[in-house]
Amino acid sequence: MTPPVAWQFGPLLPWLDLIAIALFAATGALAATRSGQTFVTAAFFALVTGVGGGTMRDLLIGAPVFWVHDRMVAGMCVLAALLVWIAPQRWWSGVALAWIDAMGLAAYAVFGAAKSLGFGVPPIPAMVMGVVTACLGGIIRDMLAGTPSILMRPELYVTAAALASALYVVLRLVETPSFLAALLATGAGFGLRAAAIHWNLGLPAYRGKR
Amino acid sequence: MTPPVAWQFGPLLPWLDLIAIALFAATGALAATRSGQTFVTAAFFALVTGVGGGTMRDLLIGAPVFWVHDRMVAGMCVLAALLVWIAPQRWWSGVALAWIDAMGLAAYAVFGAAKSLGFGVPPIPAMVMGVVTACLGGIIRDMLAGTPSILMRPELYVTAAALASALYVVLRLVETPSFLAALLATGAGFGLRAAAIHWNLGLPAYRGKR
Amino acid sequence: MTPPVAWQFGPLLPWLDLIAIALFAATGALAATRSGQTFVTAAFFALVTGVGGGTMRDLLIGAPVFWVHDRMVAGMCVLAALLVWIAPQRWWSGVALAWIDAMGLAAYAVFGAAKSLGFGVPPIPAMVMGVVTACLGGIIRDMLAGTPSILMRPELYVTAAALASALYVVLRLVETPSFLAALLATGAGFGLRAAAIHWNLGLPAYRGKR
Repeated sequence: MTPPVAWQFGPLLPWLDLIAIALFAATGALAATRSGQTFVTAAFFALVTGVGGGTMRDLLIGAPVFWVHDRMVAGMCVLAALLVWIAPQRWWSGVALAWIDAMGLAAYAVFGAAKSLGFGVPPIPAMVMGVVTACLGGIIRDMLAGTPSILMRPELYVTAAALASALYVVLRLVETPSFLAALLATGAGFGLRAAAIHWNLGLPAYRGKR
Repeated sequence: MTPPVAWQFGPLLPWLDLIAIALFAATGALAATRSGQTFVTAAFFALVTGVGGGTMRDLLIGAPVFWVHDRMVAGMCVLAALLVWIAPQRWWSGVALAWIDAMGLAAYAVFGAAKSLGFGVPPIPAMVMGVVTACLGGIIRDMLAGTPSILMRPELYVTAAALASALYVVLRLVETPSFLAALLATGAGFGLRAAAIHWNLGLPAYRGKR
Repeated sequence: MTPPVAWQFGPLLPWLDLIAIALFAATGALAATRSGQTFVTAAFFALVTGVGGGTMRDLLIGAPVFWVHDRMVAGMCVLAALLVWIAPQRWWSGVALAWIDAMGLAAYAVFGAAKSLGFGVPPIPAMVMGVVTACLGGIIRDMLAGTPSILMRPELYVTAAALASALYVVLRLVETPSFLAALLATGAGFGLRAAAIHWNLGLPAYRGKR
């Protein structure tokens, strides 16, 4: 179950967790409405995008899949799809969504790494788990929708998740208290993503050497 | 293992289960032959399509994956691919397949929801599991084959699975005997899908509101 | 954990296992660099391609996912990506890679089948597990990169894995000692793949019969 790990960080992280799931679910529903799909498809996209990353994390670390034994999460994803469906389209066209998504991305990466460490996963795989938790839902959404994957874009998206996840694990290795480590790592990941949005930063692409 | 849950419904459902797997496997092999693949590819498609949905359901609810510990299912999928491979093509061009697939879809959605409830999954996630069991194999098949996904088409396919799955869970919540609930829910899902095939029904697509 | 099974075959197979993972990881990173991606994407591709097949095998047979509880494998995949990133491109254009990949393919198929038998999986699903272990990483890599899947090409690739996996299971059923069975099966799979590379062999594609 999620709560025991989440509540180690005080009352902040469980709420960030739920908000991140709802936001990711909304981006999934948006991808479906943008290509003119039906509501059932939008609800499916919302669910896959919202819980996809956390599902893979739980399967990999051998934890019970968090939303399957939860009465709320699946319904909340369908609700997010409903809100996207009935709300005026212009609500979603602003940059607000990108900023809140950036916060969700960083918090989710830290949460994934923390849960994995709690299940006894060694440092490097735990860093990978943070990235998987934060990014896989979006990767599956883009694959299903047939749009270029966030993985393929040079912008600092996966990298921001990797920074948050790796920083949290390193801070915990040097015995930083978990609340402080979570705060610093989430801040760093959010800061990098925010800088990438604001200044349009990206990583250099591969250029062959001969 | 599958039998304990399946046999709650009398001798009907386990056979429907096997028939549904074989039929879905055949649609997978057909997708491969249509794009001129080899037999090995056709067998792989048959397996993925036949057991894909049930595999994801079992992983999510924490059950042993049903076909891995079964001596027959994997072989039966390869056999279905062999039948598609050697039979005259016109056998498969009729509408008969769509009708039998509709029965498999409804029965499989009910079966997935029932197995999930049996593993202590709460109502709303159990409804999702029914849809996953019935539809995921086809979604993966379409993604591998590069054809537009059943998820993306407006026709009532996923919706019929959702109706069967949700109705079964609701009927069980109001203490309907499991055999009766399975019969009613399968009937409703099959009826909706049959109506969609006959009258070419679909859900309305998203039109932006401003 | 991997070691107990791997070491049944003497000190050869665990090394083949690690080499196969590193080689598959390198092919993943290569796919990313070929389409001009960033290093983070290349590392992600390396990880997915290197451990994808073994991950699915472990999830299906109910074993702990091998690389999640291992301190080295994830880091080794990132290292393979780094090597691909900094080395001169012409290192990777030769046929050497195809030949070593052929050895990895055969050894990995045998390893997957052997581990599955060790977990009590019956013969036919165990054969499937060998193919999944050897081929799934490459299938996911091709799907993510948007290139035609190895599954879709007529060349004898999946078939060579199937031969190695099936032969190992059959030899074990007739009580061949595991080391000898592994050697013979790996040799047969490698031989078939080598012949396919050398003489450009393929399976016949499906031609409809009326």
